[in-house]
Amino acid sequence: MKSKFDIFRQKVHIIIYGTNTVAGKAFDIVLLGLILLSVLMVMLETVDSVDERYHNVLLICEWVITVFFTIEYILRIISIKTPSKYIFSFYGIIDFIAILPMYLSFFFGGAQILSVVRALRLLRIFRILNLVHFTGQASELRLAIKTSRTKIIVFIYFVLVVCVLLGSLMYVIEGEVNGFTSIPVSIYWCIVTLTTVGYGDIHPVTPTGQVIASLIMILGYGIIAVPTGIVTAEFAQNRKKKGLFTLEKDYPCPNCGVDDHKQKADFCYNCGNKLEHE
Amino acid sequence: MKSKFDIFRQKVHIIIYGTNTVAGKAFDIVLLGLILLSVLMVMLETVDSVDERYHNVLLICEWVITVFFTIEYILRIISIKTPSKYIFSFYGIIDFIAILPMYLSFFFGGAQILSVVRALRLLRIFRILNLVHFTGQASELRLAIKTSRTKIIVFIYFVLVVCVLLGSLMYVIEGEVNGFTSIPVSIYWCIVTLTTVGYGDIHPVTPTGQVIASLIMILGYGIIAVPTGIVTAEFAQNRKKKGLFTLEKDYPCPNCGVDDHKQKADFCYNCGNKLEHE
Amino acid sequence: MKSKFDIFRQKVHIIIYGTNTVAGKAFDIVLLGLILLSVLMVMLETVDSVDERYHNVLLICEWVITVFFTIEYILRIISIKTPSKYIFSFYGIIDFIAILPMYLSFFFGGAQILSVVRALRLLRIFRILNLVHFTGQASELRLAIKTSRTKIIVFIYFVLVVCVLLGSLMYVIEGEVNGFTSIPVSIYWCIVTLTTVGYGDIHPVTPTGQVIASLIMILGYGIIAVPTGIVTAEFAQNRKKKGLFTLEKDYPCPNCGVDDHKQKADFCYNCGNKLEHE
Amino acid sequence: MKSKFDIFRQKVHIIIYGTNTVAGKAFDIVLLGLILLSVLMVMLETVDSVDERYHNVLLICEWVITVFFTIEYILRIISIKTPSKYIFSFYGIIDFIAILPMYLSFFFGGAQILSVVRALRLLRIFRILNLVHFTGQASELRLAIKTSRTKIIVFIYFVLVVCVLLGSLMYVIEGEVNGFTSIPVSIYWCIVTLTTVGYGDIHPVTPTGQVIASLIMILGYGIIAVPTGIVTAEFAQNRKKKGLFTLEKDYPCPNCGVDDHKQKADFCYNCGNKLEHE
Repeated sequence: MKSKFDIFRQKVHIIIYGTNTVAGKAFDIVLLGLILLSVLMVMLETVDSVDERYHNVLLICEWVITVFFTIEYILRIISIKTPSKYIFSFYGIIDFIAILPMYLSFFFGGAQILSVVRALRLLRIFRILNLVHFTGQASELRLAIKTSRTKIIVFIYFVLVVCVLLGSLMYVIEGEVNGFTSIPVSIYWCIVTLTTVGYGDIHPVTPTGQVIASLIMILGYGIIAVPTGIVTAEFAQNRKKKGLFTLEKDYPCPNCGVDDHKQKADFCYNCGNKLEHE
Repeated sequence: MKSKFDIFRQKVHIIIYGTNTVAGKAFDIVLLGLILLSVLMVMLETVDSVDERYHNVLLICEWVITVFFTIEYILRIISIKTPSKYIFSFYGIIDFIAILPMYLSFFFGGAQILSVVRALRLLRIFRILNLVHFTGQASELRLAIKTSRTKIIVFIYFVLVVCVLLGSLMYVIEGEVNGFTSIPVSIYWCIVTLTTVGYGDIHPVTPTGQVIASLIMILGYGIIAVPTGIVTAEFAQNRKKKGLFTLEKDYPCPNCGVDDHKQKADFCYNCGNKLEHE
Repeated sequence: MKSKFDIFRQKVHIIIYGTNTVAGKAFDIVLLGLILLSVLMVMLETVDSVDERYHNVLLICEWVITVFFTIEYILRIISIKTPSKYIFSFYGIIDFIAILPMYLSFFFGGAQILSVVRALRLLRIFRILNLVHFTGQASELRLAIKTSRTKIIVFIYFVLVVCVLLGSLMYVIEGEVNGFTSIPVSIYWCIVTLTTVGYGDIHPVTPTGQVIASLIMILGYGIIAVPTGIVTAEFAQNRKKKGLFTLEKDYPCPNCGVDDHKQKADFCYNCGNKLEHE
Repeated sequence: MKSKFDIFRQKVHIIIYGTNTVAGKAFDIVLLGLILLSVLMVMLETVDSVDERYHNVLLICEWVITVFFTIEYILRIISIKTPSKYIFSFYGIIDFIAILPMYLSFFFGGAQILSVVRALRLLRIFRILNLVHFTGQASELRLAIKTSRTKIIVFIYFVLVVCVLLGSLMYVIEGEVNGFTSIPVSIYWCIVTLTTVGYGDIHPVTPTGQVIASLIMILGYGIIAVPTGIVTAEFAQNRKKKGLFTLEKDYPCPNCGVDDHKQKADFCYNCGNKLEHE
C-alpha cells in the first residue's frame, strides 16, 4: 500500500513535471511569470535611479522569489524517482545556480557577479516553453541549423584566419598612433569591420589603411552570402523532403498500406501490387 | 422613391469609396497628394529654419488640409450604410486621429505630440494604394511573410534571450566605468552589436569584453542567415506551387491521361497521341 | 563611287565602333586606359597634398585627355550615319558631359563641380565592357534584378513608410536635446539604423528611445531577409528554367530536331515521333 | 641497395608528409600546436603590458620555434624527391617566409614588419587541416564559391563604380569642411556606408548629403541580396545535382529499365517487377 508521502510525491510530480492537468498548467504559468519578474528585477537592480528608490522592495521580492524557487527545487528532487538524474541534468544545475546567489550573499555580501548570475534563470524558460509552445516551428529551425552546423563552423574558422592575417597587416600599416595599439586589438577591429558592425571606436586614418579597410568591407559584404546560402539551401532541402512525403500521400497501396509512392507510380514499390488511381 | 439625400449619398459613395469612375480616381489622386503634402508639412514644421520663415504659411495650409479631411471624414460616415462599421475600423480610427490634433490644439496649444500624431496620416496611403497599385506584387510578399511569421517570431525570441544573457555578462565584465551603466543598457548594446548596427556610443574597452564582443558579432553575422533562409525557402516554395499549377497540368492526354506536358507540346510524350489545345 | 571622305568615315567607324579588328580592339584598350587614368586624376586633384605638388602635371594631362576625347567625340559624330541618334543617346550625352568641364573652365574658372562632373566618364567604361567582357554573367544578374525589381520597389516603399512613422515617433521621444533636431533628421537616423549602418552621429539616449531603437534594429535585421529572399528565388527560378533546357538536351528528335524533351519522354512532344534512347 | 641516408629520407618523408602512421599524425599535431603557439606569441609581443613583463620568455620561445621550423624546412627539402617542386610551391614559400624574420632580425634589428610577417605561419595550418579535417564540407563550400565567383566579381565591379560616382557626388555636396576632404576619402566613406559598416568617423552633415546617404544605405541594404542570391542558388543547384546522383539512379529495373526508384523500393513502380539489390 502506498504511504501518504508517496501519494503526496505523486501529486507533486503531476503538478511540477506534468502539463496536462489544470494544476500543472497553472503551475507552469506562475513559474513563467516569476522567472520573468525575477529577471526583470535583476535588470532593474543595476539601474541606479531605480535601485535607490526601490532597493528594499526589490530585496524583499527577491527573497520571496528565491524561497519559492528553493521550495520548488526541493519538491522537484523529492518527487522524482532518481533525484541524481535531475540534480546533474542541465536544467537541474541551472535551477541550483538560480537559487544559490541569494544564500551566498549572506557570506560574501551583495557581490555584483552573484547578483547577475541570477539572470541565468532565463534559461529555465526554455524548459517550460519546450513543453507548451513552438515545438513544431522550433524543431524545423533546429534541424536546419543542425545540418548546416559543420559548414558554418568551417566558414567561421575561415573568417577568423582572415581576421588574424588582415588584423596583423593593419597593425603594421596603421600603427599604434592611429588606435591599432596591438595585433589583438587590430583583429578585434577587423572582426568589427568584416561583420559590418563598425563601431567607429577604432578606424583607419592613413590612405593605405582606408584602402585595405575598404577591401575588408567589400569582402565581408560579399561573404555574408555564404552562411546565408548554406542555411537557405538546408531549409529548402528539408522542406522539399517533407514536401515529397506530403505531396505523394494521395494513394495508399490497398495491399500493404504504404503511401509515399512516386506520383507517377503504377505499382507499389513495396509489394509490387497494382495501384489504382482515381 | 429615393430622396434627394439618398441620391447625394450614393454619388458621394461612388466618388469616395469607388475607384472605377473618373471622379473616383481623381478623388483618390487628390487625396494621395494632400496626404503626402500634409506629412511633408509635419516634417518641415519641425525644422527650425523652415518653421521660422514659413510658420504662417504652414499653419494656413495645415488648416485647409484639416478642414478638407474633416469634410471627407463626415462624408465617409454619411455615405456608408452602417457608419459604425467604418468609424471603428482600422482606417476609420486613423482618419479620426489624423484630423483630431488641429482641433485639440485650440485647447492645449500647439503641443508637439499632437503635431506629430498627424504623421499617422501616412498610413492612409495604404488604403489608396491597396485599391490601385501593386496588389499582385504585394500579395506575394505578404504571403511569404505570413507563412514564415511564426518561425521569425521564434527566431527573434531566441535572439532576445541571447541578448539578455550576453548583455548581463558584458555588464559584469565591462562595468559602469566603460559605459555599460546597467543591464538594460548592456542589453541595448548587445542588440546594437548582434544586429550589426554598431553605433559606437557604447563599445567594449577591456580585452575580455572585446573578445566576447567579437564572438557576439560573429554570432550575429552567422545567424542573420536564419531569417533569410526562412523567407527565401517560403518564397521559393510559394513560387513553385504557383509554377506547378500554371505551367503544366493544363491538358491531360486523352489517350493515356499523362498531364505534365510541356506548355508548347503538341504530342503526348508518353504515348505519342496528338494533344488538342483550346 | 565613294568619296575619300566616305572611305575615311568607314575606316573610322570600324575602329571606333567595331571590336573585331585589331585596330578596333587596340582603340578600345587605349580608351579604357585613358578613362581610368582620367578618373584617377579627377580623384587625385582633390587630394590637397597631391594637388600642391603635381598641379601643373595634372592640368597638362587633363588637357591632353580632353583633347583626345574631343577628337574622339567629333569622329564618332562624323563616322555614324545618323549623328543625332548618337548625340542624344545615353552614351552620347555622357561623352559630351565628359569633355564639357575643361572648356567651361575658361569661362567660369576651375569650379569644383565642373571638375567632379568628369568622374561621369567612368560610365563610359560600361560601353566598352559591354562589348568585350562579362556579357553572359552580367545578363543573368540583370535578368534576376529585372524580374524582382517591382517587388524590391514595393519593399523599399514599405521601408520608407516605416522610417517616416518611426522617425516621427523618435523625434517626439528623444527630442532636440538628444540630437533628433527635426523629423527629417529623425527619419535619416531611422534609415541609418534600419539598414544596420549605424554611424553613431545620432543615437538614442533616453531609455524609451533605446527600447524603440532596439525594436527598429531587430526589425531591420529581420526584414533584410525579404529582398534577399526575392532575388534568390528569382535566381533559382531563372536557373531552373535554364536547367530544364540544358539538362534535357540529350536526345534530339530524329524527325524534327527538337531537343528539349522531358527526361522520361518516349515520344517527341513536337511531332509525335518515337524517341530512341541509348 | 639503399644507403642509410635514403632510408632516413624515407622515414622522414613518412613522418612529415604522411598522415596515416602514428608518428605522422603526432608530428602534425605537434606542428599544429607550435604554429598556433607561435602566432599567439606574435600577437602578444605587440601588447605592451605583456611584452614588458615577458619579453625574454617570448624571445627564447620564438627562437626555439624558429629553430624547430628551420629543421623541419630542411628535412622537407631533403626528404622530397624534387626539392625545387616543394621550394617554389605555395606552401614552400610560406614555410620559408615563416622562418626568415628571426634570421633577418640579426641584420636589421627587431623591425616590426619582420615580426608581423611571422603571422603568415597561420596559413600553414591549412595544409595540415586539408589533410585531416573538414575536407568534405570545405569542398562543397569551395565549389559553390568557385562557380559563383565570376558573378560576384561582376557584382563587386558594379559596386565599386557606384561608389566612385556617389563618392564624387558626396564630395561636391558635403565638401571638405564636413570631413569629405577628397574624392578618395568620399569613396572610402561610400564603401563604408554601402556595405552597412558605418564607422561614423565621416558622416553627412548637410540635409542634401543626408538624403543621398539615405539613398545609398537603402541601395546597399537592397543589393546585399544579390551576392546572397548568387551563392544560395549555386548551393541549391550543387546540392540538387549531388542529390540526383546519390539518391536515385542506382538500380535500373531489369524488366523496363526505369531507374529513378526510391532508395527503399523493392518493386519497380513502373512495371511491378521485383528489384534485386546488392
